[in-house]
Amino acid sequence: MNKKLSTDPYKGVRDFYPEEYAIQEYLYNTMAVVAERYGYIRYDSSPLEPAELYKTKTSEEIISEQTYTFEDRGGRSVTLRPEMTPTITRMVAAKRRELPFPLRWYSIPNLFRYERPQRGRLREHRQLNVDIFGIADQTAEEEIITLAYDLLTTLGLQEDQFEIQINDREALIAQLETLVEHSKMRNALQLVDKKSRLSSETFQKEWKKISKKPFSVTTSEKTKKLKEQLVSNGIKNIIDNPELARGFDYYTGTVFEIFDTGSKNNRSLCGGGRYDNLLELFNQDPIPAVGFGMGDVTMRDILETYNLLPEYIPMTKLCICYADKTSMERANKIVAKLRKQSVNVTTADPNKKVADQIKYADKLKIPFVLCIGKQELTAGTYTLKELATGKETQLAEDAIAQFLLGLDK
Amino acid sequence: MNKKLSTDPYKGVRDFYPEEYAIQEYLYNTMAVVAERYGYIRYDSSPLEPAELYKTKTSEEIISEQTYTFEDRGGRSVTLRPEMTPTITRMVAAKRRELPFPLRWYSIPNLFRYERPQRGRLREHRQLNVDIFGIADQTAEEEIITLAYDLLTTLGLQEDQFEIQINDREALIAQLETLVEHSKMRNALQLVDKKSRLSSETFQKEWKKISKKPFSVTTSEKTKKLKEQLVSNGIKNIIDNPELARGFDYYTGTVFEIFDTGSKNNRSLCGGGRYDNLLELFNQDPIPAVGFGMGDVTMRDILETYNLLPEYIPMTKLCICYADKTSMERANKIVAKLRKQSVNVTTADPNKKVADQIKYADKLKIPFVLCIGKQELTAGTYTLKELATGKETQLAEDAIAQFLLGLDK
Repeated sequence: MNKKLSTDPYKGVRDFYPEEYAIQEYLYNTMAVVAERYGYIRYDSSPLEPAELYKTKTSEEIISEQTYTFEDRGGRSVTLRPEMTPTITRMVAAKRRELPFPLRWYSIPNLFRYERPQRGRLREHRQLNVDIFGIADQTAEEEIITLAYDLLTTLGLQEDQFEIQINDREALIAQLETLVEHSKMRNALQLVDKKSRLSSETFQKEWKKISKKPFSVTTSEKTKKLKEQLVSNGIKNIIDNPELARGFDYYTGTVFEIFDTGSKNNRSLCGGGRYDNLLELFNQDPIPAVGFGMGDVTMRDILETYNLLPEYIPMTKLCICYADKTSMERANKIVAKLRKQSVNVTTADPNKKVADQIKYADKLKIPFVLCIGKQELTAGTYTLKELATGKETQLAEDAIAQFLLGLDK
Repeated sequence: MNKKLSTDPYKGVRDFYPEEYAIQEYLYNTMAVVAERYGYIRYDSSPLEPAELYKTKTSEEIISEQTYTFEDRGGRSVTLRPEMTPTITRMVAAKRRELPFPLRWYSIPNLFRYERPQRGRLREHRQLNVDIFGIADQTAEEEIITLAYDLLTTLGLQEDQFEIQINDREALIAQLETLVEHSKMRNALQLVDKKSRLSSETFQKEWKKISKKPFSVTTSEKTKKLKEQLVSNGIKNIIDNPELARGFDYYTGTVFEIFDTGSKNNRSLCGGGRYDNLLELFNQDPIPAVGFGMGDVTMRDILETYNLLPEYIPMTKLCICYADKTSMERANKIVAKLRKQSVNVTTADPNKKVADQIKYADKLKIPFVLCIGKQELTAGTYTLKELATGKETQLAEDAIAQFLLGLDK
């Protein structure tokens, strides 16, 4: 016997058993449907990226403490991507001459961070990324924020259950420049970024280490104008927050984050902003860009909080139960035919009692069972039973598929 | 300026630009549809797995030379999964008392191998995995092989374009035991596994290092019976190949692989078999299991060879072009309304000439454009233009969505 292995997954990542996976699929599908409604088209890439990609513009905290970075067998330094923005920028830079602008792309990649697993934070999560390249004016921000809002309401959230905080990072930096020395700017931004998660005393104590002037910032005219436009477009839950900083160094203008207005989920649901200069990573002329990321972990948490996760509905519509093993071969011809007719059919274990076969279907939450034995095969008539209601319908062989597929319409 | 970064992806992995991704999505969707037709339900897990999971039963070549294994910051040894079978076995072992058997599961994970990139082989690929747990008799093999066959024909392959080779690994080992010493069994199996890729001379030379007896094996009764049943079910391209070994140590009975019958793709399209004892990894009683993996790289290669990859059809159905910037705000109200009516709409850059805006739509292969300016807004009538044909249709605002959605039906 081998030394016993644990059946646990690696720390901080998730196994998705089928009913759990169905919820994930619901999230991915809804993300895709809403992004495509706005004309965004899907791309993808590998989670393996050259480590250099993150060296200059991703937040220092993430790079130095939170990435999975290792050397491959050929001596290359590889990182499991902690965020998607450098990847999309790399892909756009590689084909900028062939690509049509404005370029609207989305993806739902898995991202990795080495951190202590806690509510809203795991070592791997899936994140919707939506980005638009090639629009320098505010219409890009409007579109991107409207799409995020539309997705959250499509998932069932009410306007009063979340709020969209917006700010202008450039304006924040300009104001901080009047308060702190240049050498302390990075520390100041990091502290302001954390401010909402700190007590007032802790923040003041830390701020005094950076500056003698009192901390005070106000909303820029640009942010006020964006807010006004979004409100006039019908999005009422927009808050201008002059302290909003976002952790990434690449943002050059508008930044925004979306929060649960309740108290159970304090992690941001979504964060994004404008990053007009990121193509300089590749020594290229800038292309204006705005985008956001929305992660599945915090999303599931908030949907669960407000009881908005969907009920499990199996894709399998019918379970065949065998009344006797001798009829199995003929019964399986019916199964094959139903599948050709586009019915999703599973079969119970013919070695078990019929009652246990029906229990199996019930455990899988399959809506219908059909028992086949000598009697049914001789008569050519089958009894389709709906498990939830016990209702039975007598059907000829050729009518089964039509009956079941008709229910989906 | 920063040192210039390369825009290339990491070696041996792929960037999927939208038109490439659409082909991937077609493959994933077809895999899902066919698996669900047979009652298989989807699960998922993380690519990060504890390295111990692969130490005993995965092939030695893969473990010692081909995995991505590294230490995390907490000193845990982590492997990027090179195959899915150990993962599904771990998940089944973790919840065996709650799970319904026969258990039919599928997944489309990404798998990682550190190897020299070449045709049919990359460092990351996506692979359909289909597994059934809890059926000890041959009906499990029949179902699994029929599903694989059904998937390939659904993707458009003709029966004469691929062949399904089957064998019984147990019978092969029993025969090899009469030819080689026990200590050389592993070498013998590895050599036989590679036989079809070696010249006859090379094989004979290597074989002589292992045994003085001539190499000769025959098909078992079990394999003949399985073949007969599959042929009688209508699958004609079944070949019994007594030399088929498969690289994994965990197979306990039937093994099978599917090959292109042409000469362009020599990598197997699909491989699988029975692994009844793998739960012993977790010190648990066995559960009979049969499964296969079918990778996207070889699949794309063969579909491309036979010209079976689908044409790109964008999800975006309409591009709005702006005749003048002053009408933009009113035009965008129409855009918002169309999206609420479930039309996928994108917008061109209003700063460009109308002709260039239409070119943009054409480059994205979007089927329809609608130009909006003062004239259209005043008249309340819009000209929907189909780019492929040049055909124009005059529509009132409220009729646009209905017209476009009607085309999908």
